[in-house]
Amino acid sequence: MNTNNCYCVIMAGGAGTRFWPVSRVARPKQFLDVAETGKTFIRHTYDRMLKIIPKDNILIVTAGRYRDLVMEQIPELESHNLLLEPYAKNTAPSTIYATYTLLKRNPDAHFMVMPSDYIIENEEMFANTVKDAFEYVEKNDVLLTFGVVPTRPDTNYGYAQVCGGRDALMSNEPVKVKTFTEKPDKALAKIFLGSGEFLWNAGMFLWKAETIRKEMEKHLPQVTGLFKGWEHALGTGVEEEFVRKAFADCMNVSLAYGVMEKTDMAWIYPVQFDWQDVGTWESLYNYLTDRDEAKNAFSAGKVLAEDSKDTMVISPEKKKLIAIKGLEDYIVVDTEDVLLICPKDDKKFKDFISQIAMPEFEKYR
Amino acid sequence: MNTNNCYCVIMAGGAGTRFWPVSRVARPKQFLDVAETGKTFIRHTYDRMLKIIPKDNILIVTAGRYRDLVMEQIPELESHNLLLEPYAKNTAPSTIYATYTLLKRNPDAHFMVMPSDYIIENEEMFANTVKDAFEYVEKNDVLLTFGVVPTRPDTNYGYAQVCGGRDALMSNEPVKVKTFTEKPDKALAKIFLGSGEFLWNAGMFLWKAETIRKEMEKHLPQVTGLFKGWEHALGTGVEEEFVRKAFADCMNVSLAYGVMEKTDMAWIYPVQFDWQDVGTWESLYNYLTDRDEAKNAFSAGKVLAEDSKDTMVISPEKKKLIAIKGLEDYIVVDTEDVLLICPKDDKKFKDFISQIAMPEFEKYR
Repeated sequence: MNTNNCYCVIMAGGAGTRFWPVSRVARPKQFLDVAETGKTFIRHTYDRMLKIIPKDNILIVTAGRYRDLVMEQIPELESHNLLLEPYAKNTAPSTIYATYTLLKRNPDAHFMVMPSDYIIENEEMFANTVKDAFEYVEKNDVLLTFGVVPTRPDTNYGYAQVCGGRDALMSNEPVKVKTFTEKPDKALAKIFLGSGEFLWNAGMFLWKAETIRKEMEKHLPQVTGLFKGWEHALGTGVEEEFVRKAFADCMNVSLAYGVMEKTDMAWIYPVQFDWQDVGTWESLYNYLTDRDEAKNAFSAGKVLAEDSKDTMVISPEKKKLIAIKGLEDYIVVDTEDVLLICPKDDKKFKDFISQIAMPEFEKYR
Repeated sequence: MNTNNCYCVIMAGGAGTRFWPVSRVARPKQFLDVAETGKTFIRHTYDRMLKIIPKDNILIVTAGRYRDLVMEQIPELESHNLLLEPYAKNTAPSTIYATYTLLKRNPDAHFMVMPSDYIIENEEMFANTVKDAFEYVEKNDVLLTFGVVPTRPDTNYGYAQVCGGRDALMSNEPVKVKTFTEKPDKALAKIFLGSGEFLWNAGMFLWKAETIRKEMEKHLPQVTGLFKGWEHALGTGVEEEFVRKAFADCMNVSLAYGVMEKTDMAWIYPVQFDWQDVGTWESLYNYLTDRDEAKNAFSAGKVLAEDSKDTMVISPEKKKLIAIKGLEDYIVVDTEDVLLICPKDDKKFKDFISQIAMPEFEKYR
């Protein structure tokens, strides 16, 4: 197909604290290389897309405050490909912004929505899959998402049940989605896993710009209404003011909840490439290769560990001696201004870290 | 009595790692203020003695490498009152050096041997006790040590059994010692405590210089022999060379083992003043006043503690946020170049820390 019609919108606006205290509001995960690959997540994502579609067709959507971080990582990005969100309103408003922008540029645009913080190691298989997906949406008027065969009853992911049950997944072709379920509890996740008719929703979407425009106007009229008529403002001197007003007034809503769960045009493509949403300290643990016999994993300078196991020690500056004894299933993170010692269980970490929302901890966020 | 005959020899040569990583070989405990009193241990010790005896009668014995640290803390110390040990050979050789030095200066010298790293809060009672002890040794030819009534079966102390049993302790007068036992095991310590006829040996000694000279020549002739004739070298240009040779050749032996356990002139003075050999992280725990409801104790900047109890957090720079969850009975010490996380139990700490003797950890000692 003609890749001139193929676009990618990289979503890079997240400001999570899931890798706190290494990730901060001032430098979130996508601008870091916590998995020690040699490149930040966003740079990996950009380079991966560059192998598939023309450079000028890759857009980045991010928060205004991350403009400099994006330009630091992707200095070759041209300013018309950088869409700045004045307020964080989740993925649906950003996608609306990108959709109108692309439609004005090319009414035949197809585009992929790609998170900026995934690890995908088999890039060739990824590229082939994405190309196939672009071809599929050219021929089929669907909202396509990418699905991964689940390997464990993970409660951090969204699950998609396919029409036609497990047999429908045999073909490795896109399948119509029956239901979406975001982050089920453990019991439900086990049932999903056992049934064989669920896939993890990998959070990557692909569609014709025109198709998603129609579906958003249908399912999120209270959001798209705010942007009515702004096609004329795009690329002009009033764009920034227009965008600021629309985002200020609009609700916070995700693509998954606002569109995908409501549309009857959702299809899912069972993909074969490895994919990891390394979104928590616990999931990062599997990526660290420097580990000892007791399965302690290190991204640090010198470590002395005794009577400890399954524990992660993270010290981005890699200068200190970190001496630990008697820790099991812990995470130890030592940064310049914060030391964290916490069980590495995602929920315990998340609950604990929610406290840094208190005003007294503002400077450490 | 005439305080011109009263001297004090402050022992400040120790290079322990008991407060590692805050104390280092390069700056051991006596030059620190880990208990946050506002003054270092050695400065407290010096000031405490200044209230009892003339300034010119207070000597400090330390390792050559600590000369600058002593002068930083006691800038008014005159050089003839600073005795430098060329090699660390424990307390007996240092005491021999001090004994000959004092005898040359004043044949009627009485002197107290005082560790430099104790906490004694009731300084007036201490002063009165020391004065009484000087008077006692003036009249009685004994090797006097100070005893504290034990309050728990502590295995870190030496115990002295008195002649005459518990009745002998009623008078609060010096009592003859029957036996010394260094660091008994827990079972034995409990028996000692229950018997009522044991005191903790506080490691402070007081005697006539002439008495200790004779007893050392009797019980440690292999050490005193090395120093024979050196009275003539003292205070001359060859002193340093003489001392270096004597220390190089001499054995490593403590006053307690080399003299006190062997002599039949050991007496012990049951003292009333509070006395704490804050010699381990665990014992320091009781001194930290900044603590929360869960008995976590802090000497740090900002701390966020959850599901944690009886845990100490020490951060001498007091700059970081230290966020801990799920730690019980731990010590967390964060210094510029070392982070330690370890159960605060003395033995576990000591065993763990013994590993820093390995060559790879040299720079962190």
